[in-house]
Amino acid sequence: MTFNERLRQTCRRKNSYLAIGLDPDMDRLPGFLMDFESPLLEFNKSIINATSDLVCAYKLNTAFYEHFGVQGWRALRKTIELIPEDTLTIIDGKRGDIGNSSEKYARMAFAELNGDAATVNPYMGYDSVEPFLKEESRGAFILCLTTNPGAEDFQYLKMGDRTLFEHVAQRAVAWNRKGNVGLVVGATRSDEFRTIRAIAPELPFLVPGVGAQGGDLERAVLGAADKNGEGFVISVSRGILYVSDDLDFAQASREKTEEFRNRINKIRAKNG
Amino acid sequence: MTFNERLRQTCRRKNSYLAIGLDPDMDRLPGFLMDFESPLLEFNKSIINATSDLVCAYKLNTAFYEHFGVQGWRALRKTIELIPEDTLTIIDGKRGDIGNSSEKYARMAFAELNGDAATVNPYMGYDSVEPFLKEESRGAFILCLTTNPGAEDFQYLKMGDRTLFEHVAQRAVAWNRKGNVGLVVGATRSDEFRTIRAIAPELPFLVPGVGAQGGDLERAVLGAADKNGEGFVISVSRGILYVSDDLDFAQASREKTEEFRNRINKIRAKNG
Repeated sequence: MTFNERLRQTCRRKNSYLAIGLDPDMDRLPGFLMDFESPLLEFNKSIINATSDLVCAYKLNTAFYEHFGVQGWRALRKTIELIPEDTLTIIDGKRGDIGNSSEKYARMAFAELNGDAATVNPYMGYDSVEPFLKEESRGAFILCLTTNPGAEDFQYLKMGDRTLFEHVAQRAVAWNRKGNVGLVVGATRSDEFRTIRAIAPELPFLVPGVGAQGGDLERAVLGAADKNGEGFVISVSRGILYVSDDLDFAQASREKTEEFRNRINKIRAKNG
Repeated sequence: MTFNERLRQTCRRKNSYLAIGLDPDMDRLPGFLMDFESPLLEFNKSIINATSDLVCAYKLNTAFYEHFGVQGWRALRKTIELIPEDTLTIIDGKRGDIGNSSEKYARMAFAELNGDAATVNPYMGYDSVEPFLKEESRGAFILCLTTNPGAEDFQYLKMGDRTLFEHVAQRAVAWNRKGNVGLVVGATRSDEFRTIRAIAPELPFLVPGVGAQGGDLERAVLGAADKNGEGFVISVSRGILYVSDDLDFAQASREKTEEFRNRINKIRAKNG
């Protein structure tokens, strides 16, 4: 089965279009966790146990792990082992290199970390992305239009009658021969979602930027949904992870997760 | 002292504009190394011991380490500890993310791995690059024009009267407030070096792609050199690492390193 089909079925089965970004920031974890050998892992374990029935995927940004070196990689790998079979794992590494090297990054994401999908940076073009697309059951979300202010430096530059992010979306459609390509489009950029959807009607959108980064949930869901009202994942990290410092922080995160999940489904239902 | 000044002084002092890309491919290491606990580390140790007087820097592509997970990160870190003080360490990770996450990647490259510089992907713009530029003594080489075929997918797209890679070069110049920004320009693209040099006369060029990837050394050196005939580093990996399978493989690599170093210096001398 293709990755995009797996994603669709997972969202339907779990009735959830929400992913949690497991990006634990040591400075923001509940203080009592510091007594554990691996506060990162302990935090993630509590969050996964409390929320896995409510989300279609967990997205793990490698930046939050690898600055701890060996310890961080151990926590990353052990966290992934805790994610239940029925929930997808997205390795958010934004990697990209010449073919020979990107092949090794794909091996990292899929063989070493057992991810179901990875985020990939398109700057270096097709041979930097292709190693992530070899197995149809695993997918690549290609950075298209990102949430951050720097998106305006290059992604909006006009080349001919199209911006760079439109060119990226267009190429991503061409690269989707095996049904395993998606796009990263930031919720803070929902003005552009209609344009990107028109170019890539069938690619799933991975949508970060709701919550801490200020993207509006309703506009993001309405803009990201495909013609069937699906084909997207809203990823929330800080807005779910850091709602409480108490011993029952995970329960507080669960409530927030449920709230996001339900709000997304309500917007989908309203939309028809 | 700024990173770019450190680089200049290192090249002058060691009379070398050559870096070795320490990208050990398990399938290509001499067979007898497989008996060691960490073949990667053993290989790197031999190469560093045999070549460190001949190079200005070692460039470590993280792809070649992280697909081995915890073991790979341990080998990466231990390798870096073996690099002598008078030789620079470039963490070739091509990272880039929103500011909050890129900050952690910079911490990985500079605090955890103690790199002197890192390669950075520009697609996400200024706030994805800026965390790598905070300390003037550490630098970022921004991907501008890459060696691989996929470079043609986006980097050559024309936006107004300039290609994307020219826009990147232009922004990199603006971002060089602390004297610690450089550019990655592939040796296979030496036709464009004059254009990029005109935009960025003072930024150092990190030039991979000579050797296995087919870039011509003379054209790369002549094109990359600044008005003083310096301001560049030629990085060779496969063309130096895999010249022999024998017990004395490191000696064979040393000879190849010396040959590259001398050829570069001869081209520089002829030029000026």
